[in-house]
Amino acid sequence: MECAKALRGREVRVTLVDRQNHHLFQPLLYQVASAGLAAPEIAHPVRSVFADQENVTVLMGDVGDIDLAARRVTVGERHLDYDYLVIALGVKTGYFGHSDWERHAIGLKSLDDATEIRRRVLLAFERAEMCEDPVEKARLMTIAIVGGGPTGVELAGAFAELARHVLRRDFRHIDTEKAHIVLIEGAPRLLSMYDEDLSAYTRERLESLGVTVLTGAPVKAVREKAVELGDRVIEAENLIWAAGVEAVPIARQLGVPTDPAGRIVVETDLSLPGHPNVFAVGDIAHCIDQGGVRVPGLCPAAIQMGRHAASVIADDLAGPARGGRYAVRRQFRYFDKGSMATIGRSAAVAESMGLKVRGFVAWLMWLFIHLLFLIGFRNRIAVLLQWFYAYVRYRRGARIITGMDRPQDRS
Amino acid sequence: MECAKALRGREVRVTLVDRQNHHLFQPLLYQVASAGLAAPEIAHPVRSVFADQENVTVLMGDVGDIDLAARRVTVGERHLDYDYLVIALGVKTGYFGHSDWERHAIGLKSLDDATEIRRRVLLAFERAEMCEDPVEKARLMTIAIVGGGPTGVELAGAFAELARHVLRRDFRHIDTEKAHIVLIEGAPRLLSMYDEDLSAYTRERLESLGVTVLTGAPVKAVREKAVELGDRVIEAENLIWAAGVEAVPIARQLGVPTDPAGRIVVETDLSLPGHPNVFAVGDIAHCIDQGGVRVPGLCPAAIQMGRHAASVIADDLAGPARGGRYAVRRQFRYFDKGSMATIGRSAAVAESMGLKVRGFVAWLMWLFIHLLFLIGFRNRIAVLLQWFYAYVRYRRGARIITGMDRPQDRS
Repeated sequence: MECAKALRGREVRVTLVDRQNHHLFQPLLYQVASAGLAAPEIAHPVRSVFADQENVTVLMGDVGDIDLAARRVTVGERHLDYDYLVIALGVKTGYFGHSDWERHAIGLKSLDDATEIRRRVLLAFERAEMCEDPVEKARLMTIAIVGGGPTGVELAGAFAELARHVLRRDFRHIDTEKAHIVLIEGAPRLLSMYDEDLSAYTRERLESLGVTVLTGAPVKAVREKAVELGDRVIEAENLIWAAGVEAVPIARQLGVPTDPAGRIVVETDLSLPGHPNVFAVGDIAHCIDQGGVRVPGLCPAAIQMGRHAASVIADDLAGPARGGRYAVRRQFRYFDKGSMATIGRSAAVAESMGLKVRGFVAWLMWLFIHLLFLIGFRNRIAVLLQWFYAYVRYRRGARIITGMDRPQDRS
Repeated sequence: MECAKALRGREVRVTLVDRQNHHLFQPLLYQVASAGLAAPEIAHPVRSVFADQENVTVLMGDVGDIDLAARRVTVGERHLDYDYLVIALGVKTGYFGHSDWERHAIGLKSLDDATEIRRRVLLAFERAEMCEDPVEKARLMTIAIVGGGPTGVELAGAFAELARHVLRRDFRHIDTEKAHIVLIEGAPRLLSMYDEDLSAYTRERLESLGVTVLTGAPVKAVREKAVELGDRVIEAENLIWAAGVEAVPIARQLGVPTDPAGRIVVETDLSLPGHPNVFAVGDIAHCIDQGGVRVPGLCPAAIQMGRHAASVIADDLAGPARGGRYAVRRQFRYFDKGSMATIGRSAAVAESMGLKVRGFVAWLMWLFIHLLFLIGFRNRIAVLLQWFYAYVRYRRGARIITGMDRPQDRS
């Protein structure tokens, strides 16, 4: 999307292909999963974004095949011939090569994932309320989250608050404060990309919210409603997988070098080796930038890469001679704005430009930045309103269970 | 819910059983189906409503059996014994006895129905954009709605505006203004419960929005993506059924008299004949009130009936002698506040207390009344905001297609 936007006004015909009709604001996905926000509040129709940009055509469809030699992309039954191709297909939840674990532990990458998690977690509390066996009751009220990165931390904090504050007075036969939220991380500490101080602070905050934090606890196996660690088994009605991602399968089928997670290894101009008219940007690209920095799989990096690809294409088209156009390309340099994670309401950790911030101030920064980048004026106001309400009243607006009578038999 | 609320502070133990965890504001369901509102905005967790009412326990579950003789309700594996029972199970979409039509024409009774309609309609436009065959393109852009009552009229108006205004600039290969919205009614006019003037006005307004209105056109058959009328067949990618309802099947299994639509025929105190401790209220009840009026299947009637059942139970419990308590019950009298339907933005029809109102004034009334009754402060503000935005900018906030990668294989 950023690449297409940056080509505004250029004499190019851009075709944007996506399997979803909406752009998703991924950093807030955990809030849909934890019933804080409604799905449409963090999504925006791709078509709306480009309604006024005449040189962009949006097609909704799955990319079936990319033929680099023939310069052709297949979408459904259609073939799209290209001069330039920008691959920004992203990543999916990765299970360390254990694809059978996927059945037992749901990942969080799409709105459907998020509403499915919301459905399952809320339903587990409903079942616990009906349940008369105390062991089963405890199992129903256990949520195990694998992965102590930002997504795992944010989910654990949000579920702990959901159970301890939001749902507290709603049930008669269960004490939702006794819900067991377990955060499992294989590495020795949470948020391992952050400074150790911030990791320690995060752990402390989560524990004060009642989360059980298990670090240095690599997952041995995932079974139906149970996760096996080295020394114990955690039985949980809900298992959520936030431990890793891998490139979408098509990346390996291109015949170009990929890294162990299947990401496309790109040149410093973001083009594919031997294919100067093809770029990979965002999470699907494995990129060492001009300064020798490994570009992380973060939203700001993807935005910068998309814009860079657009500028290279624009330079090419403006270049003097067709033959020499690839010789003078500008190289990509990642500008690290820092990163942040929120831990329940009113606490967060942030690292930016060598600064470390934590607590309420970091949370206000998080709030401000996330509202700023949330696409669409309407969404911004609506989300602010929800947050304000949730903050003051300890309520959550999206605590509904849907998908109970999905019309599966209808076409 | 109204019955349980009206029993607040009484010395009774109320168990409220529902198959959904949320109360749905049914009159705005068509706005979720037409991408105007997000699902959580018109729903509210039942538990939240009763969080502070100590004598109410909420159970989420399907009612499997009602044994009037044993005074027992089965919910999942649990048996609930009762002294009093209030049956408020409502209705489901009815297909005039042709249950096979259900596969081809989706009804609109739940949030899942609404998001499924939204998904299918938005997806049809996406497919039309990809489609190169003009006949197929036209078929994809056709929405046929069966039933010219308020739901059919509101859906037709909302889809016409979606196509003509909201989506207009978003596509490159289709002209969404040429979308074909067909509203089919078997009776000679739309909104047959309203005055003829208002029916004529409604038709005129819909036609000016580009809707094809077919009245006196009873449905002969419904097939895969086609509806057969007397003299023609309408081929449509989307068929929506808003032509009727019938009581949920359990009503016929009670061994008490039901009407042809399966509704339970109740006494004027709303109790079941021969079962003075069992009441049926809302759409599932067939009731002739004290004044000889047939109580309609409308939201205000259901609210009044629920409150009436509560007052009868409270009277019983306060009554002097157990033996004589049923003799002096108050009879239900329906207070008809009138009814209204909206036709796209800024037009509506309303009838109340002998007054007929139409046009912009009726629409403002509709707006005011629907906001007033929408449960929950937060929802009210959020919906008002959405509507304001939609009105000023001709945008719709919930234009997202979900359910594309439903994790079906997960438990």
